[in-house]
Amino acid sequence: MKKHNFSAGPCILPSSVLEKAASAVRNFNDDNLSLIEISHRSKPFVNVMERARELALEHLGLQNKGYKALFLQGGASLEFLMVAYNLLEKKAAYLNTGTWSSKAIKEAKHFGEMIEVGSSADANFNYIPKNYNIPTDVDYFHCTSNNTIFGTQLQSFPDVSIPMVCDMSSDIFSRVLDFSKFDLIYAGAQKNMGPAGTTLVVVKEEILGKVTRHIPSMLDYKVHISKDSMFNTPAVFPVYVSMLTLEWLKENGGVAAIETINNKKAALLYNEIDRNPLFKGFVANKEDRSKMNATFNLLEDGLKEQFDTLWNAAGINGLNGHRSVGGYRASMYNALPLESVQVLVDVMQELEKNA
Amino acid sequence: MKKHNFSAGPCILPSSVLEKAASAVRNFNDDNLSLIEISHRSKPFVNVMERARELALEHLGLQNKGYKALFLQGGASLEFLMVAYNLLEKKAAYLNTGTWSSKAIKEAKHFGEMIEVGSSADANFNYIPKNYNIPTDVDYFHCTSNNTIFGTQLQSFPDVSIPMVCDMSSDIFSRVLDFSKFDLIYAGAQKNMGPAGTTLVVVKEEILGKVTRHIPSMLDYKVHISKDSMFNTPAVFPVYVSMLTLEWLKENGGVAAIETINNKKAALLYNEIDRNPLFKGFVANKEDRSKMNATFNLLEDGLKEQFDTLWNAAGINGLNGHRSVGGYRASMYNALPLESVQVLVDVMQELEKNA
Repeated sequence: MKKHNFSAGPCILPSSVLEKAASAVRNFNDDNLSLIEISHRSKPFVNVMERARELALEHLGLQNKGYKALFLQGGASLEFLMVAYNLLEKKAAYLNTGTWSSKAIKEAKHFGEMIEVGSSADANFNYIPKNYNIPTDVDYFHCTSNNTIFGTQLQSFPDVSIPMVCDMSSDIFSRVLDFSKFDLIYAGAQKNMGPAGTTLVVVKEEILGKVTRHIPSMLDYKVHISKDSMFNTPAVFPVYVSMLTLEWLKENGGVAAIETINNKKAALLYNEIDRNPLFKGFVANKEDRSKMNATFNLLEDGLKEQFDTLWNAAGINGLNGHRSVGGYRASMYNALPLESVQVLVDVMQELEKNA
Repeated sequence: MKKHNFSAGPCILPSSVLEKAASAVRNFNDDNLSLIEISHRSKPFVNVMERARELALEHLGLQNKGYKALFLQGGASLEFLMVAYNLLEKKAAYLNTGTWSSKAIKEAKHFGEMIEVGSSADANFNYIPKNYNIPTDVDYFHCTSNNTIFGTQLQSFPDVSIPMVCDMSSDIFSRVLDFSKFDLIYAGAQKNMGPAGTTLVVVKEEILGKVTRHIPSMLDYKVHISKDSMFNTPAVFPVYVSMLTLEWLKENGGVAAIETINNKKAALLYNEIDRNPLFKGFVANKEDRSKMNATFNLLEDGLKEQFDTLWNAAGINGLNGHRSVGGYRASMYNALPLESVQVLVDVMQELEKNA
């Protein structure tokens, strides 16, 4: 039975992408060699890397606007460090909306003065802080667009005169935004883009080269840009599968088209969470709810076993909430079909009928 | 036609490993989910990571000797930096045997005093320096066991009283050594271990925690050890394929058995290079020759087109030398069968007959 995969990440990828990826591991490009046993400097793979970089900029509407796309290693966790290494000369402003923001702050604060402009740590990150002030004399402002663990999402971004850096690991390519508001966007691949093992960085070149410290080669965005994202051997397979997923997105109408479907999926599930008397959403304010990760709880603990049995029997996978929140989390990334959400809603209604 | 893959890396992997890897991309562990769309915290993947770490130590004979194995991201290039960050307090001694040693030196010298104890840069790295002195007051000694680009290999390692660090990216698991002589071994996966995208680090825990500087989390070996190599989302597919390759090595008799075959392959090719009047080896001293990468030149440039046509027609792939050496390079990693080397030798002999 095909699973309904609500995993928070690594997560569901389009089945056509998985088929092409498996096929390339056997025989890539009809060359009778596996994708993973050819040189990363060979023409077929250089084409993959270039196509992936181009598609990333295209989906964000950032072509010919001074941005470069890189596929690096180390996940968002290494970007927490690289952002500070490359941009933090004196002080930086961070918005703290969850576990990942907190980790970004922890790594950056060793590089200069840290100004936490807002935080929802007081309520286990169940809301997005509003009306915070960003000083104009900081080197940059950093935020996290979607908080996978808590199920909150920034619906708008401040207008700032300083560079804006955003960790979009868990909602990149899921909705239309004016991405030119951002000067540096980074995202681990393993949600909407591909398998774990590569990280997309999209950076406006003009913000680089302004700190005085020595930057080690592997942590220097300028080094990676100068080598077209091939300073060292890239993560060949993760980059290839990311390219396939970005192609799939394009074939399916791009970010605008997928956003329409994502909105339908989120509306279907949140309507049920709000309607069904057995469930309650975790996020305090409805306007802060994430369209990628819906966090919710059963109001009666006694129903847990029955609910878990029902959704497991329906072929649903990955619904358990993160340990820091508990309850349930339904992650509805781009590749999750609307039908899977319907299956979950059906199970929630079945529980209500049985209860 | 199946290719004879002499690529320098990413390079040939066992065909049984490629089959299993492709299959796991479709359906892993009979769970009706792809390997690349499940949580890295799920039991099936945690088992993969633990098995890979265990097999790495087992093949090196380093179980229960105070070592930990980690599968990190960023390639050897990030290790150049991490080694210095974690170990270099005042000064370090490096042996410079090629491009990768030079890069390791370039990254480390920002962290303390750099003592280059020996170098073969004077002869385009066509030999391994001997009789160099390693000061006893350095924090560690660093060397590169095999030089992929130049085709040289260290046949012995110094006895030192300080920690010894070795970049074994291109010959790990290819020969039996007393690996307990080393305190830290690192290797990008993409030669004898797996696809690009993960790096094996084997480190003796007691050498860590001795520098006074702040180490960022992602660069701190102690952090990765404390999280069982899962501090952040690992490169799931590269780690899985590395585990499969380490299993394959075990099923085929381990490092000792593969060394016997590697010796046969190297002897077959070097004998032909030395016998055939049309060819000349690049490495100055025969005892410094690499059993992984044989570098050689045609003595008459006029025969290049004919030779290239012949080996291409024989299904040979990846034989062009690196741009800094020129000529040819035959990489004979663990997964390359003896028959492929015979095909190359046959082509060299055919060229001689025709010439």
